[in-house]
Amino acid sequence: MTDNELGRRTWVIAEGYIPSKSASEQPSQEMLSHETACIVNAGDEPADVEITLYFKDREPVGPYRVRVEPRRTNHLRFNDLEDPAPVPRDTDYASVIRSSAPIVVQHTRLDSRQPPHAVLSTIAWAE
Amino acid sequence: MTDNELGRRTWVIAEGYIPSKSASEQPSQEMLSHETACIVNAGDEPADVEITLYFKDREPVGPYRVRVEPRRTNHLRFNDLEDPAPVPRDTDYASVIRSSAPIVVQHTRLDSRQPPHAVLSTIAWAE
Amino acid sequence: MTDNELGRRTWVIAEGYIPSKSASEQPSQEMLSHETACIVNAGDEPADVEITLYFKDREPVGPYRVRVEPRRTNHLRFNDLEDPAPVPRDTDYASVIRSSAPIVVQHTRLDSRQPPHAVLSTIAWAE
Amino acid sequence: MTDNELGRRTWVIAEGYIPSKSASEQPSQEMLSHETACIVNAGDEPADVEITLYFKDREPVGPYRVRVEPRRTNHLRFNDLEDPAPVPRDTDYASVIRSSAPIVVQHTRLDSRQPPHAVLSTIAWAE
Repeated sequence: MTDNELGRRTWVIAEGYIPSKSASEQPSQEMLSHETACIVNAGDEPADVEITLYFKDREPVGPYRVRVEPRRTNHLRFNDLEDPAPVPRDTDYASVIRSSAPIVVQHTRLDSRQPPHAVLSTIAWAE
Repeated sequence: MTDNELGRRTWVIAEGYIPSKSASEQPSQEMLSHETACIVNAGDEPADVEITLYFKDREPVGPYRVRVEPRRTNHLRFNDLEDPAPVPRDTDYASVIRSSAPIVVQHTRLDSRQPPHAVLSTIAWAE
Repeated sequence: MTDNELGRRTWVIAEGYIPSKSASEQPSQEMLSHETACIVNAGDEPADVEITLYFKDREPVGPYRVRVEPRRTNHLRFNDLEDPAPVPRDTDYASVIRSSAPIVVQHTRLDSRQPPHAVLSTIAWAE
Repeated sequence: MTDNELGRRTWVIAEGYIPSKSASEQPSQEMLSHETACIVNAGDEPADVEITLYFKDREPVGPYRVRVEPRRTNHLRFNDLEDPAPVPRDTDYASVIRSSAPIVVQHTRLDSRQPPHAVLSTIAWAE
């Protein structure tokens, strides 16, 4: 198993939900409620990543495009996705992540609707 | 890996427990203690899903039937399952989820027995 | 995939730690800090389960023996394991779970060292 | 599946972040914010483990070297890694873990930036 083969090219995160509220009126960036796809590309080629979002009652939105450089990790906040459209708050969604090179994806949420914050994390589904 | 092949048809969530209490007397729907099976169907065919619940000391109950439309996600709350019987509160259970089309399932719990709430999540077991 | 084939016979939970403290002096059984192996046996044969505990600086202890009846789930608290020896508190451990029939295992911890409690959960490692 | 074959030799944890802050000025070792790789070696051979850390905007750092003795578990705190360099705080990272013998790895974080603490855990990605 070389670094260039580490991971998979397709990942699914079935859970997604960004609360519009944080406990503080003006939370720091660190403590803002957020959903993250932690992506690591251990190989020597750039990983061109496309993310498609799925919703309960309308067609999917995407792809959102992100590049993860060789030998780098990108802890991508869904909050920051803007193109083709911002991710709606207080809305259930899911995501399918496809990459040009093998990557590993882990899903994490920091939920600061009430102080103190709560956290969850799980490895995503890989194919 | 096409969207129609994304995921599996059989999933297991070994953990299940819905607290009867929430910290607030009248919690919002958002903050009510709940267990969720986040299901995504990325394919072009509807996914007819059957859920069977397992208990500690009696026979399984089900199937509960849910349809997840093509290219949609359904964050299914076990709290809302009513037919053939409501899910008992304060009771350990497990669930087996079978689908007519490939899906991905992630398990999440929001526990608001005490303020603030706590959260957990994990990918379900797939076969 | 029939119910008799659902899951695996060998599971590993690398994380284990039971805090000796709970926030309340006399917590309810529900709110006592605890580690759980949620086991489901969806098949028609009993699952005779053997658990071995691994430690940082001494030989493994076990097996602990538990039976999970057909079509039942058992949310087994490590706190309750007594034979051949109680699980030490405030001590890192790991567990290997072997079963005579296929099962699915999910690991959950409720940590009530400080109020309110925190929770974590993950699917165990299967072979 | 013998104990000597239990697990895999390559693991990936895509998420990593050690807060520099803990709620208490002088938290106990137990309650200090920390990231842990819980490793279990159920076999009869020592596992020589090498950990490489990946970052957002610079080259990987490592390997960090740890030995897990036969039939032992090591809940390795990333906070304690010092050689070849301490793990930076308040910084996103990811880790690739390679072992000379099969092991199982589970990722856990205790986050005590605000009281009470929050916890997360997930099985790592294995190859």
